[in-house]
Amino acid sequence: MKMFSVGIDIGGTNTAIGIVDEAGNVVVKGGVDTPSHGDAERYVKEMGASVKDMAKKLKLTNPDSEIMGIGIGAPNGNYYSGTIEYAPNLSFKGIVDLVELMRAEFPEYKYVALTNDANAAAIGEMVYGGAKGMKNFVMYTLGTGVGSGVVVNGDLVYGHDGFAGECGHTTLIPGGRVCGCGAKGHLEAYCSAPGMKRTAFELLAYYNAGDSLLADKSFNELSSKMIYEAAVKGDKVALEVFEKTGQYLGQGLADTVHHLSPEAIFLFGGPTAAGDYIFKPLRESLEAHLLPIFKNKIKILPSELSAGDAAIVGASALVWKEQDK
Amino acid sequence: MKMFSVGIDIGGTNTAIGIVDEAGNVVVKGGVDTPSHGDAERYVKEMGASVKDMAKKLKLTNPDSEIMGIGIGAPNGNYYSGTIEYAPNLSFKGIVDLVELMRAEFPEYKYVALTNDANAAAIGEMVYGGAKGMKNFVMYTLGTGVGSGVVVNGDLVYGHDGFAGECGHTTLIPGGRVCGCGAKGHLEAYCSAPGMKRTAFELLAYYNAGDSLLADKSFNELSSKMIYEAAVKGDKVALEVFEKTGQYLGQGLADTVHHLSPEAIFLFGGPTAAGDYIFKPLRESLEAHLLPIFKNKIKILPSELSAGDAAIVGASALVWKEQDK
Repeated sequence: MKMFSVGIDIGGTNTAIGIVDEAGNVVVKGGVDTPSHGDAERYVKEMGASVKDMAKKLKLTNPDSEIMGIGIGAPNGNYYSGTIEYAPNLSFKGIVDLVELMRAEFPEYKYVALTNDANAAAIGEMVYGGAKGMKNFVMYTLGTGVGSGVVVNGDLVYGHDGFAGECGHTTLIPGGRVCGCGAKGHLEAYCSAPGMKRTAFELLAYYNAGDSLLADKSFNELSSKMIYEAAVKGDKVALEVFEKTGQYLGQGLADTVHHLSPEAIFLFGGPTAAGDYIFKPLRESLEAHLLPIFKNKIKILPSELSAGDAAIVGASALVWKEQDK
Repeated sequence: MKMFSVGIDIGGTNTAIGIVDEAGNVVVKGGVDTPSHGDAERYVKEMGASVKDMAKKLKLTNPDSEIMGIGIGAPNGNYYSGTIEYAPNLSFKGIVDLVELMRAEFPEYKYVALTNDANAAAIGEMVYGGAKGMKNFVMYTLGTGVGSGVVVNGDLVYGHDGFAGECGHTTLIPGGRVCGCGAKGHLEAYCSAPGMKRTAFELLAYYNAGDSLLADKSFNELSSKMIYEAAVKGDKVALEVFEKTGQYLGQGLADTVHHLSPEAIFLFGGPTAAGDYIFKPLRESLEAHLLPIFKNKIKILPSELSAGDAAIVGASALVWKEQDK
């Protein structure tokens, strides 16, 4: 009997679904639209139909397979209550008891668990990735926002109400840039992909840099990928964007180290593909902010999860963690 | 049979020792000088003699008593290794294996454990104080420095190498004041008692405030107690020191909330005696920095440990935590 788990990643427009083996390979892929109709029960029926269809496909190639459960990563997903709570980018109003709805749809599965997307990535890293065997580490996910998952003594930290690990909303610059959450100066406003764009625009303005490769793009056109491509060509503004983003991240990660004394911090997401452009200033800045007892001890590592499947794979890993309990 | 534990608080000049009952009352008090001779074995013999003397006194009033063990709070105390490592304010060089030395001195005691002073205070709060029954909380100790202890799922977080909970060294103001550790802008440089004095001197300079009640004190004379007394008399500079200290703390505590989602954060130490002078701006600043999901949820509470005995009592609580394992 080979064991599998279902990973579901709920995004603002798409819901990606995968059946994942114990090594973290996605063996069947599927998905549905994340609805704009706001009807959670209808959505669960749609997901249910998709998963059942995928399970049939799995049986074709793996007749002796068993699906142990479903793991779900969702914005504002609360592990304790199994609910999605007031997610700003989803159409559901208020609190949706997604785990209960899924359990009703799949009474035959042993485990149905939900957490937020960054926590799911952290569990994925622990179960399948570079954090295998680590008991104390932190995962930062850099994308449209900055998420994080905190692992202490081998367990994800959920805190008192299930929402621990929102390190993207620590204050980096007091009174600084307006964050998506409404507060000022949060790390996410500097170190997310849009944060890098904001840094680029600040630098273009500061240097009056009409000769930069970035100077012909509008605010809505410019992407972090373009900044990377300009940096590779030696564009000074683009290089300084990475320098600054690394410095910002180093400061923020130092705060995390002082809270938690992790063995490693993993970084996941687009900006980490820039390699030394971002990791070098990050490590220098981190060390400059650390207490002597932490200096030259903390590993800063790129995630080993493959970019395309990480969210599904991370969500599926929730099932194995439940099974270990 | 009544059970007791020994709490030892190692400070820069004095080592306070107490025998503590299960309710957190110090029933016998003692102490030795923290040595300047740097000889750890001699120091342990001195502590040993003091503890044995105190145990005899205990027997006089409690003939049916049993001492379960010794808990030690020390600067740079490492719970995992039982060592004090490179403590800047102690005369011992390098790493001192204090737990092993104490075990050799007291083979009859079941438990000998050591941690840093702020962690000991957190355990004290959990065992005897306002955090009884709480599973997720954080303790900040405000004094000459700013220490902290982090509790997740009912256990103190030590992290990968035993040094978690150094929240006093998170960055509050990038490139800001020089911290005692050498880095810049750390919370400790703003929210410790000396940090408050630094704020007072900045404000005196900013306002050219010759009419302030603080204007006749030298840098070495001014204490946080004097600032409090001036605030009570309505001194504008002194009031603004508390306002700013509360704002700084609120920013720092928000970072802690975003990492850990605690039920409460406890504050211990001299500055907290100022009550609303500091708690009011602190709570306002905290809320302004928080994600909506955390707003109006996090309790900010003064420690319930009595100021005089807290360090001893906190250290003694280590023994009961060991016993629970």
